[in-house]
Amino acid sequence: MAPKVLLVLYEGGAHAKQEPKLLGCLENELGIRELVESHGYELVTTSNKDPIGSSEVDKHLPETEVIITTPFFPAYITKERIDKAPNLKLCVTAGVGSDHVDLNAANSKNITVAEVTGSNVVSVAEHVMSTILNLVRNIIPSHEMAIQGGWDIAGCAKNEYDLEDKVVATVGAGRIGYRVLERMIPFNPKKLLYYDYQELPPAATDKLNKASELFNGKGNIVERVEKLEDMLAQADVVTINCPLHEKSRGLFNKDTISHMKDGACSGKLRGYGGDVWYPQPAPADHPWRSFRNKYGGGNAMTPHISGTSLDAQARYAAGTKAILKSYFEKTFDYRKEDLIVIDGDYATKAYGQRK
Amino acid sequence: MAPKVLLVLYEGGAHAKQEPKLLGCLENELGIRELVESHGYELVTTSNKDPIGSSEVDKHLPETEVIITTPFFPAYITKERIDKAPNLKLCVTAGVGSDHVDLNAANSKNITVAEVTGSNVVSVAEHVMSTILNLVRNIIPSHEMAIQGGWDIAGCAKNEYDLEDKVVATVGAGRIGYRVLERMIPFNPKKLLYYDYQELPPAATDKLNKASELFNGKGNIVERVEKLEDMLAQADVVTINCPLHEKSRGLFNKDTISHMKDGACSGKLRGYGGDVWYPQPAPADHPWRSFRNKYGGGNAMTPHISGTSLDAQARYAAGTKAILKSYFEKTFDYRKEDLIVIDGDYATKAYGQRK
Repeated sequence: MAPKVLLVLYEGGAHAKQEPKLLGCLENELGIRELVESHGYELVTTSNKDPIGSSEVDKHLPETEVIITTPFFPAYITKERIDKAPNLKLCVTAGVGSDHVDLNAANSKNITVAEVTGSNVVSVAEHVMSTILNLVRNIIPSHEMAIQGGWDIAGCAKNEYDLEDKVVATVGAGRIGYRVLERMIPFNPKKLLYYDYQELPPAATDKLNKASELFNGKGNIVERVEKLEDMLAQADVVTINCPLHEKSRGLFNKDTISHMKDGACSGKLRGYGGDVWYPQPAPADHPWRSFRNKYGGGNAMTPHISGTSLDAQARYAAGTKAILKSYFEKTFDYRKEDLIVIDGDYATKAYGQRK
Repeated sequence: MAPKVLLVLYEGGAHAKQEPKLLGCLENELGIRELVESHGYELVTTSNKDPIGSSEVDKHLPETEVIITTPFFPAYITKERIDKAPNLKLCVTAGVGSDHVDLNAANSKNITVAEVTGSNVVSVAEHVMSTILNLVRNIIPSHEMAIQGGWDIAGCAKNEYDLEDKVVATVGAGRIGYRVLERMIPFNPKKLLYYDYQELPPAATDKLNKASELFNGKGNIVERVEKLEDMLAQADVVTINCPLHEKSRGLFNKDTISHMKDGACSGKLRGYGGDVWYPQPAPADHPWRSFRNKYGGGNAMTPHISGTSLDAQARYAAGTKAILKSYFEKTFDYRKEDLIVIDGDYATKAYGQRK
């Protein structure tokens, strides 16, 4: 019996036919079938991942050597599932963000966890910019009014601001957070703040400051803040761009949020736009689907689509192929930046540092 | 009988009470009442501007010396209305964009037309960036899905692209168009193109190229294109940032659009996001309210809110006051860049060059 590569993807259905560039769906299988089969593996592709224990995914675990899943429609690789997959050697995230894998359990079983690091950081950074502009400028309720036939400009404008001259803060200044900072510069922010376990490289800080000098006539725009609470107290806009792991889970709680500037009186925050949910797919009655601020807006949620643009799909399909090739041909020459967990330990500080 | 200053603004209603920064609505009168009355004028504020001929606006025309209106909710100052206002000396646009005034008629009667030029170019440029990101990344239909309880990622992703590495073109590289080009740079476009009656100043081009070199390692990013059709044939994204006047009216017609790249098969364009309509308010059945592309998205319309953020309102209220002060005190020391029409001629090439 051939060992299995288990590929979990969202269904494309009619969309897959309409758009052949939709590589990352069930029907188009990231274009990896030939690669997998030519190396003597069986490719099992499924979207049936829930519930844990009785799904199609669970059925194949005993013979599975490689699991590939996406952050947008993840098969949660829990300890329970890892225990049922004695032959599992490699978990690949087709995209970026491996919080759907129990990394400690993977470590304990010497399972490699890899993602396609560069593949969609630009896509996500663009999504963040769009979310911030939509919230600050109150775009979505205004658009809804346009669609629904209204023309109550005061009703839109009362919750509409400019991004210019605001303090923008990112939790996490890694590949995504830093790109958000770059994209902020020509919007002429009052200040850019970041909170991260490590300082930005001097070249990155220099670039931001030079660009700010060039565009806005003011250097020294970016500043690292040591204490999260201090950053939150100054920020008009806070964007969270860090991986989810044991230490970051629950980072934004009632206490943390209490340090933020007052937004709306009926609630602490003026708005929230998130793309990542738990669980995914989110239930139809998930509270994030329907919340509003006192102005009737402030909701910019999207169903985890930020990293799966067609451009990103081309990149993470190619990256997944490269990882599989290294594995099948036993060269194991993975790109260092793609590795989350290998040889029983964390390969990256972003997810590590937790003992 | 005191001469009248006629101020036409959208209604704030309960919104005006909820948000005192909403200066640009009927109730808050741009904060100009004291200034107007202290100079011996009567201030008439109204939102009743239609229909032409029998509205509240029309009733006051015979005694009106100054009309102030906004681009978002304009009183159209037609030749007919100008003929009924023998004492009219000054039309002020609280904001930017004076296409609601018949400029030729204003010229023939020696009426000064002025706007508050700097007041909302940043607001509008931010709005343009938001519109482009929303369309390219298919954000609005994805958000609608999140709100409505769905999780069809393929249905969102099939019309979702990255802005990176696209050719972005602006019709008009004036105060707004140029700011859009600036904000595009860190998004790492393939090329930035512009079509304008005048070339960007060398310093502006240099700035864009230097910033592109700094962020993306490639200079020479911006290019002026002589023929509109040539620009449209190359562009993935086209943004229109020129004033509406006799020469630009109907610029995008079936023929012009036929030169654009194919977007969707069921129609030439993949999407359109506009903020300015005709007439305003737009009727509830205006076709722009409901169009969709074949992917079910592609509509990013908003009800002319781009320039009326609360930050912009503070600026255009202050600018309107400055213009009124120059007029009342007969110093006539208007800011040169605020003048559209004065002394019977066009003061700006952007609206002129039409004989």
